[in-house]
Amino acid sequence: MAIELKGLTKRAENYSQWYNDLVVKADLAEQSAVRGCMVIKPYGYAIWEKMQRQLDDMFKATGHVNAYFPLLIPKSFLSREADHVEGFAKECAVVTHYRLKNNPDGSGVVVDPEARLEEELIIRPTSETIIWNTYKNWIHSYRDLPILCNQWANVFRWEMRTRMFLRTAEFLWQEGHTAHATREEAMEEAVKMLNVYADFAEKYMAVPVIKGVKSANERFAGALETYTIEAMMQDGKALQSGTSHFLGQNFAKAFDVKFINKENQLEYVWATSWGVSTRLMGALIMTHSDDNGLVLPPHLAPIQVVIVPIYKNNEQLAVLDSRVAPIVERLRNMGISVKYDNADNRRPGFKFADYELKGVPVRLALGGRDLENGTIEVMRRDTLEKETVALEGIEEYVAKLLEDIQANIYQKALKHRAEMTTSVDTYEEFKEQIEKGGFILAHWDGTPETEEKIKEETKATIRCIPLDGDKTPGKCMVTGKPSAQRVVFARNY
Amino acid sequence: MAIELKGLTKRAENYSQWYNDLVVKADLAEQSAVRGCMVIKPYGYAIWEKMQRQLDDMFKATGHVNAYFPLLIPKSFLSREADHVEGFAKECAVVTHYRLKNNPDGSGVVVDPEARLEEELIIRPTSETIIWNTYKNWIHSYRDLPILCNQWANVFRWEMRTRMFLRTAEFLWQEGHTAHATREEAMEEAVKMLNVYADFAEKYMAVPVIKGVKSANERFAGALETYTIEAMMQDGKALQSGTSHFLGQNFAKAFDVKFINKENQLEYVWATSWGVSTRLMGALIMTHSDDNGLVLPPHLAPIQVVIVPIYKNNEQLAVLDSRVAPIVERLRNMGISVKYDNADNRRPGFKFADYELKGVPVRLALGGRDLENGTIEVMRRDTLEKETVALEGIEEYVAKLLEDIQANIYQKALKHRAEMTTSVDTYEEFKEQIEKGGFILAHWDGTPETEEKIKEETKATIRCIPLDGDKTPGKCMVTGKPSAQRVVFARNY
Repeated sequence: MAIELKGLTKRAENYSQWYNDLVVKADLAEQSAVRGCMVIKPYGYAIWEKMQRQLDDMFKATGHVNAYFPLLIPKSFLSREADHVEGFAKECAVVTHYRLKNNPDGSGVVVDPEARLEEELIIRPTSETIIWNTYKNWIHSYRDLPILCNQWANVFRWEMRTRMFLRTAEFLWQEGHTAHATREEAMEEAVKMLNVYADFAEKYMAVPVIKGVKSANERFAGALETYTIEAMMQDGKALQSGTSHFLGQNFAKAFDVKFINKENQLEYVWATSWGVSTRLMGALIMTHSDDNGLVLPPHLAPIQVVIVPIYKNNEQLAVLDSRVAPIVERLRNMGISVKYDNADNRRPGFKFADYELKGVPVRLALGGRDLENGTIEVMRRDTLEKETVALEGIEEYVAKLLEDIQANIYQKALKHRAEMTTSVDTYEEFKEQIEKGGFILAHWDGTPETEEKIKEETKATIRCIPLDGDKTPGKCMVTGKPSAQRVVFARNY
Repeated sequence: MAIELKGLTKRAENYSQWYNDLVVKADLAEQSAVRGCMVIKPYGYAIWEKMQRQLDDMFKATGHVNAYFPLLIPKSFLSREADHVEGFAKECAVVTHYRLKNNPDGSGVVVDPEARLEEELIIRPTSETIIWNTYKNWIHSYRDLPILCNQWANVFRWEMRTRMFLRTAEFLWQEGHTAHATREEAMEEAVKMLNVYADFAEKYMAVPVIKGVKSANERFAGALETYTIEAMMQDGKALQSGTSHFLGQNFAKAFDVKFINKENQLEYVWATSWGVSTRLMGALIMTHSDDNGLVLPPHLAPIQVVIVPIYKNNEQLAVLDSRVAPIVERLRNMGISVKYDNADNRRPGFKFADYELKGVPVRLALGGRDLENGTIEVMRRDTLEKETVALEGIEEYVAKLLEDIQANIYQKALKHRAEMTTSVDTYEEFKEQIEKGGFILAHWDGTPETEEKIKEETKATIRCIPLDGDKTPGKCMVTGKPSAQRVVFARNY
């Protein structure tokens, strides 16, 4: 595929357009023929695979196992938990028939009216209902608990306004569904997985996040408590990046899942669920990238280092090839993914721009003069700085540089968030500040009514009630009523 | 979950029931509330994950990349390729609506009649159509070729008679879809992937397979040529375990995908597709397992070695724990997955039976007397043989034993296949022999009519025209017409 290097909108001009351009031009994804559904292209998918692998390792290290539950959910299951159906009914893809037949007029195929399902099936928007219906048969005694299952799956929510990765009708995700004997253990699990998500975001994605609790308005449909990690994008808007829910006994009650506890009494099972999705790709792209294209954290970059030879003729190329081969091998032995791009159908300048667009963290360029001098040119994608260093020991240099880049882009994002976070005490200040974007720490009286009023008047929502940081009580900026602590407001994706 | 160790039907009594029992009792999968769809339980999914990881590595080593295409396919896309729609229309799950609403009578939710889709969407039974509609925009010149994409996905075919893993409405699979500039290159790709599948089946699953070409009757809907690997189960029935299709220019024509070739002429693109699914789990289970439960090949066993301590009191257990810890560590360092089961709520005898049922290849048991003697008891699952060996060097002993087991179960399956394979020359012999099960090598005149007649009269189909082996021509056993070579007949799953 020919790569169009021109025409990436600048962030300052139109941040939203810059994002859309970048997703397409960096070959991450594209719109499909099906409304609201995207095609995740190989380069985008390679990043998602690295995320998956790392998250999966972290889930397994915390005692979880993977399983797989059906794509389709009987309509009646959704209705069992009142809040849950309320939250998802309006965006369900509904399967009503199980067969097509030839159109008698010869014009193709039509739905066979005789193949109508007795009960319609819903493409899972999330799997609590089908999973708890299954757990009913798995759980009898406290000895069967806890159950710590995760599944990697596609889900479907018929969203009206979609944006690639950020909000699509079909998306890929993982959903953990755990069952516990006690309330305390379930709460602990919900918080544990929130911490796994926060660790992943910060250490691998290099995206700083605020851990917190959602207000009642923003809670998952069917949860008693929703924990969230909230990230700030470069435009100052918040992106909810992962959630972990304490579901209490709601789904156990809806599906009649009881167990005999150690005291030999029947009790409903306690539940959590937690998920992150391909939305994380959106967070990754929007946090670090710039007007030249993607900036990828080394820990998740499919190609961490690209080496481009600069040569005048095939003879010189052969010399460069043989000089580069051992470098590639040594880097690979260090666990670093390297691409040596000696393709002869593109000029070095074109390659440079392409790998910049694709966010490859480190670019090495080696030419005839370098061979004479025993040097090599190193470009780091995060700062676009170039320097010429000794060829000897380049592998260690690169390994260290990758860690420097990882740390640097995290620090840069952290600094940006700090600059875009303000504390305000009055609603007037708030209304002024929210127009500038960013996170606003303000006091709130804890009521859904006040939150709703703020949202209507300013388009800002409570992103979370932070778990860490300042816990000083105060007075609600809107009503003057008591507030337990400042909460985080922002406009959001 | 309490494990029911009793009640596994014996193979000789009822092979089919034995299989169904085993899938459930070994905790691999269970029927879900949705007709024809199964829940893949954690232990079953762990085996599938090992298969996936290995196959994915093999795909990448042969130059393929992963991507993701939409779950839903516009109905009109299916109609574009005539054979394809003919093959899949009768088993399509059809999405007709995108919203539920509260039933005015308060009885739950109903499909909102106002949310009817203009064009119905089909849950993918396979993705050729949506992918070739996408490739149209990716391919302009020979420089854009080849495209070597794979996707791991769920697909849906509304099967009337389902069996867990072997034939389910929803199943998990991978589907490779490649695009090429020449017929030769596409043919080469189709054969290459057939060989990857055969290697995987033989080296990892320890399942011997016959590589061959399908007859026209058994070809994939839309393919010009279908390559297959065919395995023989213990009951002598064949199981098609993986297919690779040369699609010619059929889908390129249906979706108008042309490219400018090196001679600067517009030409249709050449295609392949290839897939294996969770059906491989069925092949794995049915090839090796016995009346005591699963027998897993070491290369795919989630737990390769289990160590069970035999102790009289907690003091003795503590001694065993400390003696086992370094063995576990050394085995793990050798890349061997080990479970040390010192749980005190189950007796050793129960554990032994459970791990036999689960097919763990090697069981080590260590008791007080072993400590005194410097020995350990080793049980290999394939033959159920026990022996007592020196504790010193047990890690190397186990590593070698795992390879022995892998080789042994392959040889056992190969021997079984040889014993159950016969050559016949007359249709009378054929009809007699087919009742005994197994593969029959016989001459066939190459016509669909003769194949159809044989199928109707004997329930046997042509599994494949083998690529290797005897190529001597002869005369069709039914019509006496010329035959190019013997083909493989069998009854099949």
